[in-house]
Amino acid sequence: MSLIVVLGAGRSAGFFIDYTLDFTKQIGWNIRIVDINTSHLDSKKIDNPQLELVNGELSDDHVRLELIRGATWVVSLLPAFMHVKVAKDCLHEVCNLATASYVGEEMDSLSIKAESKGLIFLNECGLDPGIDHMSAVKIIHNIQNKGGKVLSFKSFCGGLVAEDCNNNPWGYKFSWNPRNVILAGQGTASFLNQGKLKYQPYQHVFQNPEVIVLPDGKTYEGYPNRDSIGYVEVYNLKNVETIVRGTLRYPGYCRAWNIFVHLGLTDDTYLYQLEEGTTYLEFFESFLMQNKMPIGDRIRATIGMNDYEEDAIDRVLWTGINSNEVIPLKSGSPAVILQNLLERKWKLQSTDRDLVVMQHLINYDLNGKSYEIKSSLCIEGEGDQRTAMSKTVGLPLAIALKTLITNPISEKGVIIPILPSIYEPVLKELESYGILFKEQESQIIN
Amino acid sequence: MSLIVVLGAGRSAGFFIDYTLDFTKQIGWNIRIVDINTSHLDSKKIDNPQLELVNGELSDDHVRLELIRGATWVVSLLPAFMHVKVAKDCLHEVCNLATASYVGEEMDSLSIKAESKGLIFLNECGLDPGIDHMSAVKIIHNIQNKGGKVLSFKSFCGGLVAEDCNNNPWGYKFSWNPRNVILAGQGTASFLNQGKLKYQPYQHVFQNPEVIVLPDGKTYEGYPNRDSIGYVEVYNLKNVETIVRGTLRYPGYCRAWNIFVHLGLTDDTYLYQLEEGTTYLEFFESFLMQNKMPIGDRIRATIGMNDYEEDAIDRVLWTGINSNEVIPLKSGSPAVILQNLLERKWKLQSTDRDLVVMQHLINYDLNGKSYEIKSSLCIEGEGDQRTAMSKTVGLPLAIALKTLITNPISEKGVIIPILPSIYEPVLKELESYGILFKEQESQIIN
Repeated sequence: MSLIVVLGAGRSAGFFIDYTLDFTKQIGWNIRIVDINTSHLDSKKIDNPQLELVNGELSDDHVRLELIRGATWVVSLLPAFMHVKVAKDCLHEVCNLATASYVGEEMDSLSIKAESKGLIFLNECGLDPGIDHMSAVKIIHNIQNKGGKVLSFKSFCGGLVAEDCNNNPWGYKFSWNPRNVILAGQGTASFLNQGKLKYQPYQHVFQNPEVIVLPDGKTYEGYPNRDSIGYVEVYNLKNVETIVRGTLRYPGYCRAWNIFVHLGLTDDTYLYQLEEGTTYLEFFESFLMQNKMPIGDRIRATIGMNDYEEDAIDRVLWTGINSNEVIPLKSGSPAVILQNLLERKWKLQSTDRDLVVMQHLINYDLNGKSYEIKSSLCIEGEGDQRTAMSKTVGLPLAIALKTLITNPISEKGVIIPILPSIYEPVLKELESYGILFKEQESQIIN
Repeated sequence: MSLIVVLGAGRSAGFFIDYTLDFTKQIGWNIRIVDINTSHLDSKKIDNPQLELVNGELSDDHVRLELIRGATWVVSLLPAFMHVKVAKDCLHEVCNLATASYVGEEMDSLSIKAESKGLIFLNECGLDPGIDHMSAVKIIHNIQNKGGKVLSFKSFCGGLVAEDCNNNPWGYKFSWNPRNVILAGQGTASFLNQGKLKYQPYQHVFQNPEVIVLPDGKTYEGYPNRDSIGYVEVYNLKNVETIVRGTLRYPGYCRAWNIFVHLGLTDDTYLYQLEEGTTYLEFFESFLMQNKMPIGDRIRATIGMNDYEEDAIDRVLWTGINSNEVIPLKSGSPAVILQNLLERKWKLQSTDRDLVVMQHLINYDLNGKSYEIKSSLCIEGEGDQRTAMSKTVGLPLAIALKTLITNPISEKGVIIPILPSIYEPVLKELESYGILFKEQESQIIN
């Protein structure tokens, strides 16, 4: 009997696991779920003899190899840096692989080997990346099939907290890996704007966000993600004049975060010297110019922006970064110290519902006329366990996996879900879970 | 007969080579000078049978090993990244090593091996690092020997162009490795200010430079170098309240350079997409926000500093970064593209004299009284070949080498010239070459 091995079964894996247990039962496959501790899944074994739970140390290369042996598919829900190791294991044991994470250079370099062994390494099949790709190329393919030409493509996605569960001035709580939030935007953002290449170094990424309006009239702000230019090729958008992919936040977040960036508090490249008893204020002050002005003006003087908005500075101070509380860490980079503070301040409470928001803005020409499509997604979670984030990451991966098993495709190697044979059934089935885009199309009269 | 092997003999090696040829002749040692092309040194062989010139490819590991075989001392004048390779060669062939460059982690890690073989690996023995260390610890040791306590140590050094040879608004021409100038300040500067740790991320390093006044009344500005805190231990300055080491420029340089930093033009982490025929203006504009304001205001809007000084913006535009000239490169990081432009704009002409400026500012307490020492050095070069920079880098290294050969010391392993047995004879002999500090001491009355 065929076997799926799932590596990693953290709290955010719930939707993926439930769906996958369900369809493996239907098609009569075995499933093995491995994590350091799987006891929270014990109840799933009732009435499911096909399910095997294994407690294992997945950072151990030998353990991993043993545990994936015999699998047809391996799904890695491990932290992203583990995926390449797992991919190499899969080459060794000749298993297909599925992950929700970005294809890095190393993963990409394994494509030819995977192909030569007849294997599929499906990646970027969660929310962002994942649903964003699938929903975007569906629209793009539709336009191109009609003979239209896409001139502008903008796409933004954010994992936030539902407005009525928000009780902090940032409008933000962690619904996914906090470290990614702290380090977001590092490196240089590159995109196309009206036919011009644009490069935004880290210190400008959060400086002047773009305003995004959802169908319900609510506004968000978007900052550009690292490399948007590569998507000209990925999305087959030759001759597109504008392309940018970015991240959504509630209004005010970016200008406030920009202060942390400018002061150097998101730096992850060196260990800050934390002596016993160091307070947040002492830590914070070590990044400020020494003078006797009020704290807001000291921040302004240090970053050299004398008219910086008071509300952005208020958000920064709200975090407690200038409090006399002792930092509960022995060492860490500034980014790690800031993350530790924010994990307490931006914690999703058990009754909080998170919010996933996505919007594509696509302009195209067809038969001499110009059109704009706004395609928007808005999903609320059901608490701090059954989050919108874990749902929108887990379900696409699970549905794509089922699709590839029940309707095999000829493509092999490293792939992402931009093939109609994957995105069509996945998007369709996601609709039955309420994951449904609202599409608005209008003609542009110049 | 004992042998010195000199690796690298570029144009800036003149002072080192002349001095070393002279003393090897006196003490009857052989000397081998190796570079890809040594023909410019052929005339030195007249009347000097001890000199051997070898044309060799020093990036080739085997070539290097062959050529240092039998040496008592190896001197590396190669680019700094080569020094660790040469150090490993020296361990293999059991030779002592001398360089003028900073001790990095890798070099430091070889210290125990060098020590166990009874070898000296002398580093940081040029100008900065080099003369700065020697002249600073000489003052510090004097104070400490009297029973004084150093409270504040500031030290700045810069390689500039003599004022009357300056014909550009930056007051800068390249007298040393241009790449180091372009990438200067990257990473985070850390120092102590009045008992407080201070961390300045790259985007603040050039923002608010400190004013430094030389004995002749001329003012310069100083920005902090990367890690000053490590020098508390190196200079034995326990309990010092202020310590900062930095770089000197003419007034106005830092605020103008800060614009390049903020726009991302000094980024060396990615390859900029240079299509054929791309102009500097197109390159520059890709870092600016798109709007119809005058160029100065576009720069201000992009960096978010609305009242940035006109003269700083004028300096940036003087470089031609917004000209319609085509960039003569096929590829490169923004930093490489900027360097290529500035190498033409900031070229030291054959009749230009460069200028080396250094100042230590040291406050100390002794017997209940407070004192300040200002120790300043000002050296002008003799043209674009016999530069002050090559003199102040080459002579300390050559004199230290002679000193270690003629008066062996017991210290082994990786060392820097903070030992009296090295700095005393070296500083003394440097005086005879006009490399002489002017010392001003005053009592501080509170």
